[in-house]
Amino acid sequence: MSVITFELLKESKDSLARLGKLYTPHGAVETPIFMPVGTQATVKAMSPEELVEVGSQIILGNTYHLYLRPGHELIERAGGLHTFMNWSGPILTDSGGFQVFSLSDLRKISEEGVEFRSHLDGSKHFFTPEKVMEIEMALGADIAMAFDECVAYPMEYEYTRQSTARTTRWAERCLKAHQKKDQTLFGIVQGGIFKDLREISARNLVSLNFPGYGIGGLSVGEPKSLMYEILEMTTPLLPAHKPRYLMGVGSPDCLIEGVIRGVDMFDCVLPTRIARNGTVFTWEGKVVIRNARYKNDFSPLDPRCNCYTCRNYSRAYLRHLFNVGEILGLRLTTYHNLFFLLQLMQEIRKAIAADSLLEFREEFFSRYLEKEKE
Amino acid sequence: MSVITFELLKESKDSLARLGKLYTPHGAVETPIFMPVGTQATVKAMSPEELVEVGSQIILGNTYHLYLRPGHELIERAGGLHTFMNWSGPILTDSGGFQVFSLSDLRKISEEGVEFRSHLDGSKHFFTPEKVMEIEMALGADIAMAFDECVAYPMEYEYTRQSTARTTRWAERCLKAHQKKDQTLFGIVQGGIFKDLREISARNLVSLNFPGYGIGGLSVGEPKSLMYEILEMTTPLLPAHKPRYLMGVGSPDCLIEGVIRGVDMFDCVLPTRIARNGTVFTWEGKVVIRNARYKNDFSPLDPRCNCYTCRNYSRAYLRHLFNVGEILGLRLTTYHNLFFLLQLMQEIRKAIAADSLLEFREEFFSRYLEKEKE
Repeated sequence: MSVITFELLKESKDSLARLGKLYTPHGAVETPIFMPVGTQATVKAMSPEELVEVGSQIILGNTYHLYLRPGHELIERAGGLHTFMNWSGPILTDSGGFQVFSLSDLRKISEEGVEFRSHLDGSKHFFTPEKVMEIEMALGADIAMAFDECVAYPMEYEYTRQSTARTTRWAERCLKAHQKKDQTLFGIVQGGIFKDLREISARNLVSLNFPGYGIGGLSVGEPKSLMYEILEMTTPLLPAHKPRYLMGVGSPDCLIEGVIRGVDMFDCVLPTRIARNGTVFTWEGKVVIRNARYKNDFSPLDPRCNCYTCRNYSRAYLRHLFNVGEILGLRLTTYHNLFFLLQLMQEIRKAIAADSLLEFREEFFSRYLEKEKE
Repeated sequence: MSVITFELLKESKDSLARLGKLYTPHGAVETPIFMPVGTQATVKAMSPEELVEVGSQIILGNTYHLYLRPGHELIERAGGLHTFMNWSGPILTDSGGFQVFSLSDLRKISEEGVEFRSHLDGSKHFFTPEKVMEIEMALGADIAMAFDECVAYPMEYEYTRQSTARTTRWAERCLKAHQKKDQTLFGIVQGGIFKDLREISARNLVSLNFPGYGIGGLSVGEPKSLMYEILEMTTPLLPAHKPRYLMGVGSPDCLIEGVIRGVDMFDCVLPTRIARNGTVFTWEGKVVIRNARYKNDFSPLDPRCNCYTCRNYSRAYLRHLFNVGEILGLRLTTYHNLFFLLQLMQEIRKAIAADSLLEFREEFFSRYLEKEKE
């Protein structure tokens, strides 16, 4: 019996989209949902109160980063990640798999696990499924992810096949090693861009009976159309009454398309990262606030947006803050971008409830341009 | 008739300390007060709401910086500095004098004004009393400061004498040029470390009948004892019923000693600047939060402090944030340091009201150590 439960409230008739509610020891989460990323025990530039204000219902912590600094034992001594970072809502920690394979140096993969060198100081570390479970249990999130290998794109079939089979064996070992009553463990479907491998991975993981499933190894460089294809053949293989989490995805278009293909949960550093570079989402597309054209623009970032930033500050002021390198600039754009994405998820949930998600998508894309608005 | 009025509520019997209230078009300020510095139309790392939370009653803007970026005309078009930066309380702008003499390159001083090159791009600019009034009127603060020359320390007598006389002539020109009904102009007493020049400067400025007086050219490198000496001979020369503002001073000890010597207003970048380097004030002295000794310290920065940071975060967490370079670290220490200084000012006001300021000083210094607490 899992400590989190997922209530499937509705399944769309004209797409794979679903409406649900995820109950965790730190509160309930309405799905589909986007999870802001708190890589190093803080969502960059935001306070926990501001995370609540923008509508965050669950946030993510990065196991790889927290293991390296400040260390999972220290966080455990602090009373767990919730207490350490002053966030009382639900938390999900990833498995470190993605970072081990994208950030670290000199990886050596074996059946046992992965030896790698820290991207910070070159120190040697060894992650096994058992070690990662130890770390995630110490961090104490509501949801932990099983240790997996995130296969790069492009990658040949044979390597992907072997890696995917190993990820499944690691998932079994994670299940055995995981022994924390107030934490739930999700498995991760891999298989790269190969549909037969995705199917094998999904079936094997489902047979292990995880309370929820990540879909990993997507949004790693492949065309979006290919990601959507893989996604729409994968989600129907997963049990309807369990949550599905598409890892590392967070652009507005991918969120909408992901929901339509049956995804319940998303995370991505995109909204916070581009905010710190001065790029914001609006309902008409992206705005690069450093642009000289906003120098004398005393209108808000997005006239349709009701967030703190848009209610109180002009584009001219935000441009000034970025121009002179002030921290408040990063705060205000980060706040806006998270508010925007969480507002988007709320409108998506409303559209599912009203059976109008496909119309919502059409209307959204009729206004939203991927390039900066002219 | 000045648009701000100063109500002298109480004069101490055993020191020059006073209790007052300063009424401005944007609200009243209890004195003695510390003013956080919003150099570039933002108090670094803070939101306006947080400034209110920590107890800010009035903030400062820097004329030199705002003139260069984004430019006073842009701020005027935005509706003034209050609207531009979303701060509805009182604002004071300095005269740019200090920055022109400390930051800019290749200054050429004449009777007419100062030619200087921007520290940003080397571009040439010319500040005259009339030009500075034009800039400050465009910024639209509640209180503007007259254009002055801030004489360096050490400086010979003869140069100081001539400069001080010129600053007085500039003050007259500022008075003539200043024509903004909802803004008040303060004069600035100079005179370096020479008591006779301080006396001449004070008498001349008083005869010009400014509604308030800055005391400039102190805390520029001279010993604190010398600053206190100059201060306690200067303030009695100023009218009792007008506010006195000691410019650029903001360490806890100098605030207490300044109040005891008759100062009503202070400003300084110190609390926000050291906060961003990870140094915080506590009632027992400074704490350098990056220090390894705080790695496993799950207590708050200051157990006596009731601020947001101290109520919600441990030293171990703050050390982690600084260690990994997270913005939230700067936010939390900045918040704490401003709260601490504004709390100190409140306790000072209470002590004046209770006729116990000298005892308060004694008690404060019995606990507060200038060096980091061991």
